[in-house]
Amino acid sequence: MSKVYQIATIDSNNIPHVRSHVSRGILYPKGSPSLPILLTSTDIRTAKVTQMLSNSRVELAWWMEGSQEQFRVNGRAYIIPPPSHPFHTMQSFPPGSSLEKLTQRGADDSDYTTSEGGYDWEKKRREVFNAMSPGMKASWATPPPGTVLKSYDEANSWPSTLPRLEEADNDEDRKTLEYALGNFALVLIDPLEVDWVQLGIKPNRRTKFTRNESLGDGDEWTEEITIP
Amino acid sequence: MSKVYQIATIDSNNIPHVRSHVSRGILYPKGSPSLPILLTSTDIRTAKVTQMLSNSRVELAWWMEGSQEQFRVNGRAYIIPPPSHPFHTMQSFPPGSSLEKLTQRGADDSDYTTSEGGYDWEKKRREVFNAMSPGMKASWATPPPGTVLKSYDEANSWPSTLPRLEEADNDEDRKTLEYALGNFALVLIDPLEVDWVQLGIKPNRRTKFTRNESLGDGDEWTEEITIP
Repeated sequence: MSKVYQIATIDSNNIPHVRSHVSRGILYPKGSPSLPILLTSTDIRTAKVTQMLSNSRVELAWWMEGSQEQFRVNGRAYIIPPPSHPFHTMQSFPPGSSLEKLTQRGADDSDYTTSEGGYDWEKKRREVFNAMSPGMKASWATPPPGTVLKSYDEANSWPSTLPRLEEADNDEDRKTLEYALGNFALVLIDPLEVDWVQLGIKPNRRTKFTRNESLGDGDEWTEEITIP
Repeated sequence: MSKVYQIATIDSNNIPHVRSHVSRGILYPKGSPSLPILLTSTDIRTAKVTQMLSNSRVELAWWMEGSQEQFRVNGRAYIIPPPSHPFHTMQSFPPGSSLEKLTQRGADDSDYTTSEGGYDWEKKRREVFNAMSPGMKASWATPPPGTVLKSYDEANSWPSTLPRLEEADNDEDRKTLEYALGNFALVLIDPLEVDWVQLGIKPNRRTKFTRNESLGDGDEWTEEITIP
């Protein structure tokens, strides 16, 4: 299964943007196996974060080369920044949404359940960061992404690897890790529509799933078979 | 090199959409090797065509798994439908654009040069269609994509393969080919910005190329090294 999908967003000039993301897993609110929430990560300083905060509707395309299948997931994106970041209070999960359910009830994975029975987003954010490779961790410790450089060589002065949080054994690493973690954000995508095309079987199949939000607390999806 | 990229568009409700496309080549106006135009194809009846006609700004993400490189190309999309299709007159290539240059001067590939020295889009459209596999050709002969079906079995009554145009030896195939070709459109993407990220080398590199449209007839791009 491919771990890379592409997320499309819209900027304030009404221009679309799309870039590849690495899947960091799929979360389900406890007791709701039909409400997947897609998890990926980003640098809080990138343009896509601003785009998602001002227009949360996004679509992702997840192409599976092996089986020639494509999942197109249209939904709402939410950012989980560090608790101290100004963006922290800019979004709230809509009532009845999968994300609200997850936050209130926790996930089936009990590692991230708070003492009140909800989901511990900050713990998850730190652990997703911690699980990254040493080189990936260092990519959040650069100056702001998109900044213009005089030459590629400038990058040689930045940290190229960072240890796990609990393995930092000097002040410099600890300080750099703190800075990197301060730029690290989770991206959650709460699906409203899924368009699934199977090109690996003949005749090709296409199935569209639509979450009926007006159902409120329900977990139901409407399923339609359509022409590919 | 991957042949699949993802194109993002915006619909009339300001919702982004993105889906995988197969690259059908890159065209260059004669004498302008620095002005690539990306070529892909679609069914004229799909929602993305309407989206591109009402908002031609698109972005595509082209991820190269092997070299861990990503090209993000932001630009304008143009549709080349059958000459008889109502959409045929809905778009014109902006003065000074790569597409206008290509249409007027032709490409380096002389197979598609008209007697006036321009580019023969209709010949190209027919030949791109003709080069598709028999199964792919048949995918343009279905009822309109997106139409709801009662079951997957309905697809069994549609043609599953179609011969090349010059190999159709009965009226039914000729009629079905004509119908399929009537739904087949080229999609051209004329780049304005290219954001190239190289994740396969350490430190990672990112380079942004911007076409300076105000240069008019010039083929120049501005190049900036940026932080990945």
